[in-house]
Amino acid sequence: MASFPEPVRRLIEELGRLPGIGPKSAQRLALHLLQAPEEDASRLAEALLDARKLVRRCSACFNWATADLCAICTDPYRDRTVICVVEQPIDVAAIERSGEYRGLYHVLEGVLNPVLGVGPDNLRLRELLQRVHDLRPSEVILATSPTVEGDATAEYIRGELERVGGVKVTRIALGLPVGADLDYADQVTLARALRGRRPME
Amino acid sequence: MASFPEPVRRLIEELGRLPGIGPKSAQRLALHLLQAPEEDASRLAEALLDARKLVRRCSACFNWATADLCAICTDPYRDRTVICVVEQPIDVAAIERSGEYRGLYHVLEGVLNPVLGVGPDNLRLRELLQRVHDLRPSEVILATSPTVEGDATAEYIRGELERVGGVKVTRIALGLPVGADLDYADQVTLARALRGRRPME
Repeated sequence: MASFPEPVRRLIEELGRLPGIGPKSAQRLALHLLQAPEEDASRLAEALLDARKLVRRCSACFNWATADLCAICTDPYRDRTVICVVEQPIDVAAIERSGEYRGLYHVLEGVLNPVLGVGPDNLRLRELLQRVHDLRPSEVILATSPTVEGDATAEYIRGELERVGGVKVTRIALGLPVGADLDYADQVTLARALRGRRPME
Repeated sequence: MASFPEPVRRLIEELGRLPGIGPKSAQRLALHLLQAPEEDASRLAEALLDARKLVRRCSACFNWATADLCAICTDPYRDRTVICVVEQPIDVAAIERSGEYRGLYHVLEGVLNPVLGVGPDNLRLRELLQRVHDLRPSEVILATSPTVEGDATAEYIRGELERVGGVKVTRIALGLPVGADLDYADQVTLARALRGRRPME
């Protein structure tokens, strides 16, 4: 970095802090941003500052919002008897894209991770229990990722909800991804797909 | 993207314009930038705007500079009898890191690429010929990448410099990267490494 002018060095350094951006990618991105038309660079900076200024967490479900409540929580056509629990706002978007779900969400803002020191108090769990208590939904779908941490978090929430009682708790299905080759599937996925087999209709 | 608030959508869109950042990565980056401490996001935006404002191209060699001439061109200890021709400022930094070179540079700002419509007039070639004419260096090292375009560009420059005459034109060596396993090397690299063999000293 020694031979870069200080402002370039700083830009590379800041880009390199982003997740998944190594030192090489940071340099390539800086090169691009310095060569792109002036407007491109300022549009990105502006989009970033605007997003930070305008976007907050929905006070009910912790999805991204530009007002106190998010677009989903204020939508009168959503089914308020189901709450789908996800890790992050980008998971809300992923489920929305599937077109399969019309209920509400609850964003945990993370998963339990003892190694990183993330415990129940660091997630929006208290808020979830409060919402379940207030809304009395008929079902809570646990849609955390099928990872060690996601599974443990789902398991933990199931326990908490069972203590509250009166609500059906479900977990999104695990199995083969659509279009996947069976012989390319890993053994754990295959085992789960077999265990989760269903009668054909 | 439909379920993201507009400012988030715009941020994802702008991030997705960056080279090597697909739609998924753009979403992950946006998530990070919205969750990171406020200062982190504003530091990145500021670094970007500052770099655009403060950094220009050296008027002699087209390396990045914060004044009319870059730090290398104004360094009195550099060897002014050698010019190393590279594609981009990040290549200058790469060669500087090697600690092997003490001469000057010339940044082409690209390579010849007929498919993308990049011809000799789109590169800093006229400026290179002028510099060679003015500085009368003893050697010009062509350090464009060993790609089809980089090789063609080097070949083109060699022809131009030979017409000017009076300067030794060299090309950086091609061969096995240090630490590489011979049986993992591709056949073209291996062929070049054999052709470029040198007597052991």
